Amino acid sequence: MIDFKAYAELIVHVGVRLRPGQRLFMGPNTPPAAAPLVHAVAEAAYAAGARWVDAVWYDPQMARLRVQHAPEDGIDEYPAWIGAATREYSGRGDAFLTLTGEDPDLMRGLDPARAGRAQQARARGQLALTEAIAANHMNWCVAGAPMPAWANKVLPDLPPEERVGELWRLIAQICRLHLPDPVAAWHAHVADLTARARHLTARRYTGLHFEAPGTDLRVGLPPGHLWQGGALAAANGVAYTPNLPTEEVFTLPDRARVDGTARATLPLSHAGSLIEDFSVTFKDGQVVDLSAAKNEAALRKIVETDAGAARLGEVALAAASSPVAAAGRLFYNTLYDENAASHLALGHAYRFTLQGGEKMSTDDFAAAGGNLSAAHVDFMIGSAAMDIYGICEDGVEEPLMKQGEWAFSA
Amino acid sequence: MIDFKAYAELIVHVGVRLRPGQRLFMGPNTPPAAAPLVHAVAEAAYAAGARWVDAVWYDPQMARLRVQHAPEDGIDEYPAWIGAATREYSGRGDAFLTLTGEDPDLMRGLDPARAGRAQQARARGQLALTEAIAANHMNWCVAGAPMPAWANKVLPDLPPEERVGELWRLIAQICRLHLPDPVAAWHAHVADLTARARHLTARRYTGLHFEAPGTDLRVGLPPGHLWQGGALAAANGVAYTPNLPTEEVFTLPDRARVDGTARATLPLSHAGSLIEDFSVTFKDGQVVDLSAAKNEAALRKIVETDAGAARLGEVALAAASSPVAAAGRLFYNTLYDENAASHLALGHAYRFTLQGGEKMSTDDFAAAGGNLSAAHVDFMIGSAAMDIYGICEDGVEEPLMKQGEWAFSA
Repeated sequence: MIDFKAYAELIVHVGVRLRPGQRLFMGPNTPPAAAPLVHAVAEAAYAAGARWVDAVWYDPQMARLRVQHAPEDGIDEYPAWIGAATREYSGRGDAFLTLTGEDPDLMRGLDPARAGRAQQARARGQLALTEAIAANHMNWCVAGAPMPAWANKVLPDLPPEERVGELWRLIAQICRLHLPDPVAAWHAHVADLTARARHLTARRYTGLHFEAPGTDLRVGLPPGHLWQGGALAAANGVAYTPNLPTEEVFTLPDRARVDGTARATLPLSHAGSLIEDFSVTFKDGQVVDLSAAKNEAALRKIVETDAGAARLGEVALAAASSPVAAAGRLFYNTLYDENAASHLALGHAYRFTLQGGEKMSTDDFAAAGGNLSAAHVDFMIGSAAMDIYGICEDGVEEPLMKQGEWAFSA
Repeated sequence: MIDFKAYAELIVHVGVRLRPGQRLFMGPNTPPAAAPLVHAVAEAAYAAGARWVDAVWYDPQMARLRVQHAPEDGIDEYPAWIGAATREYSGRGDAFLTLTGEDPDLMRGLDPARAGRAQQARARGQLALTEAIAANHMNWCVAGAPMPAWANKVLPDLPPEERVGELWRLIAQICRLHLPDPVAAWHAHVADLTARARHLTARRYTGLHFEAPGTDLRVGLPPGHLWQGGALAAANGVAYTPNLPTEEVFTLPDRARVDGTARATLPLSHAGSLIEDFSVTFKDGQVVDLSAAKNEAALRKIVETDAGAARLGEVALAAASSPVAAAGRLFYNTLYDENAASHLALGHAYRFTLQGGEKMSTDDFAAAGGNLSAAHVDFMIGSAAMDIYGICEDGVEEPLMKQGEWAFSA
């Protein structure tokens, strides 16, 4: 039995930063295999003054059975109640927690087209969650849960009975739980990321330039773009840490000004497929070419989710020496892998990465450069071989990262 | 790993009797510990043509943590989304499945007042389910799932590691899964119960006479009483079997015409107490005396719930050779225990056991003999030593059961 007490307290006090009297909504994708962590979080949340702790469970095995067996007219469906549950909590400004640790091979051996359609139906059906998070309605957090199928994927070289324990050891180390006061350590780390984000916002770069083997990409940044990182402030007034772990600062790319090619430095695990060794080429913001050594169809499916899925919604910088990178493992999970390296995301943009974005109409947000989509899929392009420059209004390029490490002090 | 295939097929084809194209809604109280059975049911449902199989999970441990830790203003809350989920499926006439096997001791050691309030909030929050089932909107079924906490309660005399396996063996035997074609056997069994109920209704008995050691009881049956049992027909047109197992036929007793003494043949587990070795005496329909060798106060508490709790709301016949009785165990779960023997229920009567009962006013239903109460507590009086007679209008007593077995053919 793993003792999740310190981790649960980190999630409650630093991650969602639960306020007394708030409800905590764990869902709508809580895996049943995470039940021991769910219970530990519930205890920590009630101790912090939670009014109600609710969990909406999502059983990956049921999703697999659906892709495997559902009739053609069922595969594109999704229940409406999941959106209703999300809106019930987000509408009141209650806190949200997502526990992640899905089996990256969940859909192995199944028809990728059907898996993709089911995933699209899920994305549409969970739009209420995507929108609530994008609009930053409430304090929320996503954190990892060590579960057998995930551990099997990350640590196949270990004896089966040791894998969950070792995955938990890596999570604990990455989350700094070995330090005497993890909550205090995280407050300091979050303050450093927040200072870097503030510095980058103040520089008002017109774009970023990424250079690495296979990558030469220019990403425009619209006027008024805001760098975020570390803590966020939600519409309900709470400053929270949306990702545990978090090592990145990120901002809004201009949906119409992305040009060049980005080569992924880590495989992308999506909807049960592992997309490997891939590149994406943009022109005027749009994906015009892509190739992958493995599962190219799955990558194409992401891009074809809707018009916005072929454009960028996020650009993020992370040091190649982050504790996630130091773990030396591919986690097959965006929360972890995206904190190992600088990255881009296809799809929906975050309103809070644009000044006044939360209050803009959809049209105004798009006109200002913000991307709209039902998808939001991160992929890693950073490495110890990457240089990144901030492009000033006069065209001068200032180094932001050299060989994958921060090249400025905030 | 238990092989649930035959049981899942029984649930799908006999219990809910899923129609091709229907969705199957498992919830809103599916216990995570029942996941292997849930998956087997999902496979069987897709094979039977289900369009979508959804599970809404309810984690008993989260309910316990809430009773233990939630603040005073949280304890009476219940999320609205659970009703929304239920209405989404019942409104379309989709099929429902409830898996039962809760820990009878879940709230042990906690404040009973808080546990009671949480249970009331849950009952209010799940009214959509109660109403959909009472109105018989769609085909539905409740079936048992072998889970550790339940197995611990039923089989405390076995070594812990053998309990779930033995509980499953008992469930499989009770559900006739050892027969070569369980689905066909159940269709025949359900047809037999349905024919018996039809026969008994047609006989228009004015009452029943129960005789056994310690029991000599006459229960009046009002004009228009309907015997129920086996299959039910839902508003969506499907004839289904709401309980697996089911061994009983049951009808409406006249709340004003019950006289004599009934001796219980099984202990009664109620509100955390086990009431043992007890007798209840009625005069003009009302309990006038009772005694129990153990927990007599708990029995008295039931009868004193309200005025209607001292009168009968249901009378049911089940053969003493039923597979549930043959298991020789108290299951601490009404679905199983009520199918072990002929029984009576103190408290609320079912509208559908009286002709036109569903459309009567409360006053008219009571005037016709129907009992009203907040309670409905079954207790077993049947055994292999019991004879039961149907009383004809002319006073002649026709044997219905002899030595606990059916004494008429339908």
